[in-house]
Amino acid sequence: MKVKVLQNIMAANDQIASRNQQLLDRNRVLALNIMSSPGAGKTSLILETIRRLKDRVRTAVVEGDIASTIDADRINKEGVPVVQINTGGQCHIDANMVNNALESLPLGDIDLLLIENVGNLVCPAEFKTGAHRRVMLLSVPEGDDKPYKYPLMFTLSEVIIVNKIDMLSLSDFNMAAFQRAVTGLNPKARIFQVSCKTGEGIESWVAWLESELPPITKTSPDSQAKK
Amino acid sequence: MKVKVLQNIMAANDQIASRNQQLLDRNRVLALNIMSSPGAGKTSLILETIRRLKDRVRTAVVEGDIASTIDADRINKEGVPVVQINTGGQCHIDANMVNNALESLPLGDIDLLLIENVGNLVCPAEFKTGAHRRVMLLSVPEGDDKPYKYPLMFTLSEVIIVNKIDMLSLSDFNMAAFQRAVTGLNPKARIFQVSCKTGEGIESWVAWLESELPPITKTSPDSQAKK
Repeated sequence: MKVKVLQNIMAANDQIASRNQQLLDRNRVLALNIMSSPGAGKTSLILETIRRLKDRVRTAVVEGDIASTIDADRINKEGVPVVQINTGGQCHIDANMVNNALESLPLGDIDLLLIENVGNLVCPAEFKTGAHRRVMLLSVPEGDDKPYKYPLMFTLSEVIIVNKIDMLSLSDFNMAAFQRAVTGLNPKARIFQVSCKTGEGIESWVAWLESELPPITKTSPDSQAKK
Repeated sequence: MKVKVLQNIMAANDQIASRNQQLLDRNRVLALNIMSSPGAGKTSLILETIRRLKDRVRTAVVEGDIASTIDADRINKEGVPVVQINTGGQCHIDANMVNNALESLPLGDIDLLLIENVGNLVCPAEFKTGAHRRVMLLSVPEGDDKPYKYPLMFTLSEVIIVNKIDMLSLSDFNMAAFQRAVTGLNPKARIFQVSCKTGEGIESWVAWLESELPPITKTSPDSQAKK
């Protein structure tokens, strides 16, 4: 009986996630679900990405947090549309929360939606949001053993970004060992090495992001003509 | 109906947690539930604590991870009893898992049990394990704004340890602002500043730990005579 209830919840979430993706596709908006531990640098990456792309790509942001609007306030200063989701204790963003956020955003006027999930390496991997890609961030101080400890997150993410590489010389983080671990779980994962502090490596990440725009619309050929 | 199912799960967990604490009390074992983000340094803190106390306190460890035995293997080299719990995807340790671990440990021969929870700042705070104290670790690279984003964890923890203070000079972490934020949520919280890398501050943490031994037994006066 308990299992049945849980299955229903997951199925509903999947269904809403699928509707979210259709809505994004109709508006030719590429959406990324950005996940990491607390403090790995999701907001800093989003800020860097907005700044590098601002002349060419219209970006909007959905900020997910248990509580507070600290991150949304930082994003807001960049002058891009931002919606804060406070999950009220829930350890991840779900599809229904994103659906509510999409209704508050000018989807026809944006190209890229960056969804910052709750800082957590476990639960966010399990809940679809409707985003086209999962991007996970790992920061150097967290250590190179995380793929073994949080395998689902590393297995499901299409893109893995190692942030705070300016701290590599102070740390025993072994990049080659980390890359082997990731490739073992997820051979197709694309790995970027960046420092949001020094700016190193951000250009490659942003170039990849632009190459993914607009998303390939699978739902209906009509929507191809929209833009 | 959904809420009812969830309440039952929580109540069962609370009941098992209470039995765990009684079992620990009867054996005069102080148990700590150690929580943090992935990579904040829980295992390093446990290793430092074992080494500093080894001549005076008999320590055992329960290691909680989604997957892998990396941390348990590190602890095992110290020659103390260690049990690995693999949660198989679950984002926290629950009381039943700890109950199973307690059955595998020589409780009569230990004074201190360190329970390393899954790396996560959200869910572990919500589930009692039966430990006497909640200890949360925050590392400097995660940033000083975490009390606002993960208020439950900071509110419930009796002890908050700021680790990686050797990185303070490289970081914009504002210790005074952090302490104000913690005190606002949790005026009684005891805050330690440590570096497991340089050893700075570990002595104060260990001194506090020793002062808490053995736990005050509330269940039955008989158990006072056991040791």
